[in-house]
Amino acid sequence: MDLFQMSKSELLEFRNKTENEYNSFKSLGLKLDMSRGKPSPEQLDLSMGMLNVLNDGNYKSENGLDCRNYGMLDGIPEAKKFFAPMIGVNENEIIVCGNSSLNVMFWTIQTAFTHGILGEKPWCKCDKIKFLCPTPGYDRHFAICEFFGIEMINIPMHSDGPDMDMIEKLVAEDESIKGIWCVPQYSNPQGICYSDETVKRFAALKTKAKDFRIFWDNAYCIHHLCDEPKYILSILDEAKKVNNENIVYIFGSTSKVTFSGAGVAVIGASLENIKSLKTALGISTISFDKLNQLRHVRFFGTFDNMVEHMKKHRELLAPRFNAVTDMLEEKLAPCGKIAEWTKPQGGYFVSFNAMNGCAKKIVKLCSDAGVKLTGAGATFPYGKDPDDKNIRIAPTYPSTEELKKAMELFIICVKLASAEKLLETK
Amino acid sequence: MDLFQMSKSELLEFRNKTENEYNSFKSLGLKLDMSRGKPSPEQLDLSMGMLNVLNDGNYKSENGLDCRNYGMLDGIPEAKKFFAPMIGVNENEIIVCGNSSLNVMFWTIQTAFTHGILGEKPWCKCDKIKFLCPTPGYDRHFAICEFFGIEMINIPMHSDGPDMDMIEKLVAEDESIKGIWCVPQYSNPQGICYSDETVKRFAALKTKAKDFRIFWDNAYCIHHLCDEPKYILSILDEAKKVNNENIVYIFGSTSKVTFSGAGVAVIGASLENIKSLKTALGISTISFDKLNQLRHVRFFGTFDNMVEHMKKHRELLAPRFNAVTDMLEEKLAPCGKIAEWTKPQGGYFVSFNAMNGCAKKIVKLCSDAGVKLTGAGATFPYGKDPDDKNIRIAPTYPSTEELKKAMELFIICVKLASAEKLLETK
Repeated sequence: MDLFQMSKSELLEFRNKTENEYNSFKSLGLKLDMSRGKPSPEQLDLSMGMLNVLNDGNYKSENGLDCRNYGMLDGIPEAKKFFAPMIGVNENEIIVCGNSSLNVMFWTIQTAFTHGILGEKPWCKCDKIKFLCPTPGYDRHFAICEFFGIEMINIPMHSDGPDMDMIEKLVAEDESIKGIWCVPQYSNPQGICYSDETVKRFAALKTKAKDFRIFWDNAYCIHHLCDEPKYILSILDEAKKVNNENIVYIFGSTSKVTFSGAGVAVIGASLENIKSLKTALGISTISFDKLNQLRHVRFFGTFDNMVEHMKKHRELLAPRFNAVTDMLEEKLAPCGKIAEWTKPQGGYFVSFNAMNGCAKKIVKLCSDAGVKLTGAGATFPYGKDPDDKNIRIAPTYPSTEELKKAMELFIICVKLASAEKLLETK
Repeated sequence: MDLFQMSKSELLEFRNKTENEYNSFKSLGLKLDMSRGKPSPEQLDLSMGMLNVLNDGNYKSENGLDCRNYGMLDGIPEAKKFFAPMIGVNENEIIVCGNSSLNVMFWTIQTAFTHGILGEKPWCKCDKIKFLCPTPGYDRHFAICEFFGIEMINIPMHSDGPDMDMIEKLVAEDESIKGIWCVPQYSNPQGICYSDETVKRFAALKTKAKDFRIFWDNAYCIHHLCDEPKYILSILDEAKKVNNENIVYIFGSTSKVTFSGAGVAVIGASLENIKSLKTALGISTISFDKLNQLRHVRFFGTFDNMVEHMKKHRELLAPRFNAVTDMLEEKLAPCGKIAEWTKPQGGYFVSFNAMNGCAKKIVKLCSDAGVKLTGAGATFPYGKDPDDKNIRIAPTYPSTEELKKAMELFIICVKLASAEKLLETK
C-alpha cells in the first residue's frame, strides 16, 4: 500500500478510509500532552530518596562550611568534583549553579550583551549579532536569540553533527557571528551524536570574532538508551590541545536526571572564561541553593553511581521509544516514502520528517483530536521550518499505553495529510 | 572621661593606655567575621524541620501539578498566596522565584538594559543612567549599579526615610534618573522604618522618566526585635490610589527567615509590570525550584505562622543586638561625642558613626586584631563614605559571647582612633 504507487481513485479511497478512522479517534476525546520533553512521574519517583538525604542533620560541605548559610558562590567543592566529569572539565573549570541550565545560557548571553566577553565590545553596542543554529534544534535556544534580536542562520545537520564546512567558512568571514548552539550528544530532536572529528573541528574553530562562543548544551550526556553508548569527546580537552580553550561554554544539568523542577545546573569553561563569569556572577547573587547541590552529591555519592542510576531511566524510557519507532515502522513504512524518522540511541526525542508541507497539518489534526505535539516549525529558528516537514515527538512523559494510543492517532494523521498532499498533484 | 574635655597630656595618656589594651587584645589571636548579615547556626536550626516536610511523598501543588517536574513559571499557586501578604501585594501581583532576591533585582536591571521597561528605550541605548541611593545603604545594591555603569547620587537619610524633597525634585527634572534603592523597613544599615508619609510620597512620585522604578527591597519586613513592631504601608496599595502602580518593583525573600542559601525570593509589582516581567522570564527559564517553594508553604502553613516563627529569631537576635548597644552605651557614651549609633527595632544591623575620618582606621585596627568588619565606606556608593565615619555592625552571626569579645575590641579601637584624631588638632 505504497501511497506513491496508488492511482487517484485508490488514493481517494485511502484518504476517506483514513478520515473515518480519524473521526472515530476524535470521538474518543483523548487528552494527551506530548509537546515537551518532560520526565514521567515514575521516572521522577526514582530520585525521591534524594529528598531525604539531609534528614540526618548533616548539612555541612566537606570544607566544613554550612550549606544552609550564605557563601560559596561557585558551588560547594564536592559538587564541583561530582559534576566536572559529567561535562568533561576539571573541578576548577566549573560553576555549580541553580536549577536551570537554560537560565545559565540566558545569563551568559545577556551578560555578553551588557558587558561583552573578555574585554570585547558589549553585544548591545554592536550593529548586528548573529548566531549559527544547527537545524532542526531546540526551540528554547532559538527563543533566546529571538528575544535578543540575534539573527539566526540555519545550519544543516548531518549524521555526525552540523555541517562543519559551512560553519568554518561562515565564522572565519563574519565578525558579527558570535555564537552557535550545539546539543552535541543525542541532539534535540534528532538524537545525533557529534563524531570525534566534528568535536575536534569545533574545538579548533578559527573565528573572526574574538568573542565567538560555542554554546555546548550537553543536556543528554548520560541519557543513553542502548547497551554501548557513544561518548563524545571533551570539547574543552580538545580545545586546550590547540590553544583555543576560550571558544566554548559547556552546559549541563540534572533536570532530566533527578527533578526537572529541582535539579542542579552547571557551566564549564576555560579558567579565563570561568574567572570572568564569576566576577559577573558575584554581582548578581550571593550563592546558589547549596543544600540542593549537597542533596545531589549525597544521593549519588559518585558520578559513576549517577551514570548507573540512568540505567533505571532507560528501563522506563526504552519501551516508550520502542513503542514509537516500532509503530512507525509497522504502520507507516509500508506506505512508502511519506515519512522518515530517527531511532535514537539516547536523549529525549524522536525526530520525524513528513512529506514537505505536511507538518503543520499533522500537528493540527492531532491537536484537534486531543493529542498536543510540539508545534510544527518549533525546531527551527523563528518557528519557520522551510520545508514544513519536521515534527518533534516527545515520548518520555506519557505511559506506554497512552503513547501507543497517541501514536495510533499520529500515524492516522500522517496518512491523512500525506494522502491529501499526494492528491493535490493527481 | 569626655575626650573632648581632656588636655593634650590627658589625651596622650588615654591614647597610650588604650593602645596597651589594644595590644593585649591583639595577642589573644581572635578570629571573628562580623562583615556580613549572616544568620547564626542556631537560627538556621530553627528551620531544619522544613527539610523533612516532603518526606510523606506528597509533592503535588494544590492545583494537582507535580512540583518535581517542569512548569509553573511564576511559582506554585499556594506559594503566591503565602508570600503575597509578606510584600503587600495580591496573589496575582507576585512571581515566586529562586533562592536569591538579589538575583531578581539584578535581573530586572539587566533586562531593563537589554530590553527596556514597558516599551521604553533599553537602558543600554541611553547615554547615561542614574540611580538615587539613600545613604548609608546596602553595598550589594550599589555594586549592581557600579557593574552596569549607573551613576549613583547620594540621598541623605532621615529618621522617617530618605530625603523626599530632594528625591521629588531630582526625579521630576532628570530623565536619566531611572531608579532608587529602598530598604523601607529596618533599612540596611540604620534600621530606619519609612513613615506612612514617606511611603505615600514614594507611591505618588512624579518622574520625568516613564521607566523610573523604585527598587523596594523589603528584606526585613518581618524581622522585628521589639514587642510592637512598626509596619510600613503597602507601597503598591498606595500607588494604586494615585494611579501610579507601575512605579515600583517590590522584593522579598526568606533568606533571613529559613535558609540564607536555600530560601525563596519573590518579586511583586503591578499587573502590567508582572506581565512584562513574566514574558522575559519565560525566555530565561522553564521554572524555578518549586519543591523548595512547597517546602516553605508546608513548613509554615500560613503567613501568620511565619510571622510567629520570627519571634524565635528574635529570641536569638535580641540578646546579640542588646550586647552591642549596651556595651556601646556603657563604654563609649562616657567618652563624649566621639560616636553615635542606632538602636534598631528590627533588621540585621547596627549603624555606627565614628568621628569624621575615623571609620577606615577603626576597621583596620579591628581587622589587625582578628575581627573582620564590613569595610568602611561599603555602605556608600563607590565605597566612598564622604565623611569616613560610618561602620556597619552585623551582630547576627557570632554567639553573644564572641560578640561581647569583638565589641570590647571594637570599642578600644574607636577610643584609640578618636584619641589620635583629637590629638591631631591639639
